[in-house]
Amino acid sequence: MKCQTYFKQRNYANRGMTLESDINITNEYYIENNIALIYKKPTPIKVAKIDYSHNKITDAYFECPSTLDYNGIYQGKYIEFDAKETNSKTSFPIANIHKHQIEHIKRVIDQRGIVFLLVRFNLLNENYILMGQDLITFLNTNKRKSIPHEYFTQKGYPVQLKYTPRLDYLKEINKIMEVL
Amino acid sequence: MKCQTYFKQRNYANRGMTLESDINITNEYYIENNIALIYKKPTPIKVAKIDYSHNKITDAYFECPSTLDYNGIYQGKYIEFDAKETNSKTSFPIANIHKHQIEHIKRVIDQRGIVFLLVRFNLLNENYILMGQDLITFLNTNKRKSIPHEYFTQKGYPVQLKYTPRLDYLKEINKIMEVL
Repeated sequence: MKCQTYFKQRNYANRGMTLESDINITNEYYIENNIALIYKKPTPIKVAKIDYSHNKITDAYFECPSTLDYNGIYQGKYIEFDAKETNSKTSFPIANIHKHQIEHIKRVIDQRGIVFLLVRFNLLNENYILMGQDLITFLNTNKRKSIPHEYFTQKGYPVQLKYTPRLDYLKEINKIMEVL
Repeated sequence: MKCQTYFKQRNYANRGMTLESDINITNEYYIENNIALIYKKPTPIKVAKIDYSHNKITDAYFECPSTLDYNGIYQGKYIEFDAKETNSKTSFPIANIHKHQIEHIKRVIDQRGIVFLLVRFNLLNENYILMGQDLITFLNTNKRKSIPHEYFTQKGYPVQLKYTPRLDYLKEINKIMEVL
């Protein structure tokens, strides 16, 4: 098999790439500085056909993930999160989260893991951590198809972009863990 | 995108499938019984060409993983391991483990995660947990290209196959955690 360095699947829906690259360079910083080990899971792909004579996949499809995109370990603690972007200024569409992912978030909470969404409002230049429990609470108490921006300002935790580390979400997670 | 249930990449080298399926049904049992959340990461694939009109990947390659195949959370603890099979009766070839994976194992140990190999000696019908630290110790103290079977009987922890859960490695991990 051809063996290459990790490939960022830019082709996958062309969404979230800026946020994704911010997170990826932040995670590289965390790894290089022995702060945490957090990786993006490869996008699940269903391989239908392989040309073994050329070690080449000739027919395959992207699949929907049933877990979140990023997981790893932060000083002994299990961390899992997903990165989502929206171009809406007023709300975050829940359709961005697969049903299986919501079930999975509940399970991670039950297992005492740190689970959250990292949501970017592109047109507001705002990034928020929304803890899994706050997401579940919203889904349990609302019939809405989207989470209003105010819910993020009230329940979420803002993460500012800076030079390095680019998007220091673990710094915010630290604060959150202290109060929880 | 076509969306389907998780696909076991049988095409990938045609190795470790029996052990892999034993682990997968064991992990399903753990999830259904709220014991742990452990998933196999998708095999990393480099996508070179997509036929967007048919939502189809027409050119792609398998990549070498730089982390281990399975990770997740077990009652708050981070777990990561790889499943390896060998047809040798006398030793386990170290070439089965990628260089990046060994560096990664050291990092997981530094982060206080539970990291190990689950090794099956096919012709002996034996499965062993080899903790990451014992693997690193061997690599640091030996010039050999393979780990002798005796090292597994001495330093490893046997895991017996049973009806359900099929390969209850977490039961062994529990015992190991108590003594560590």
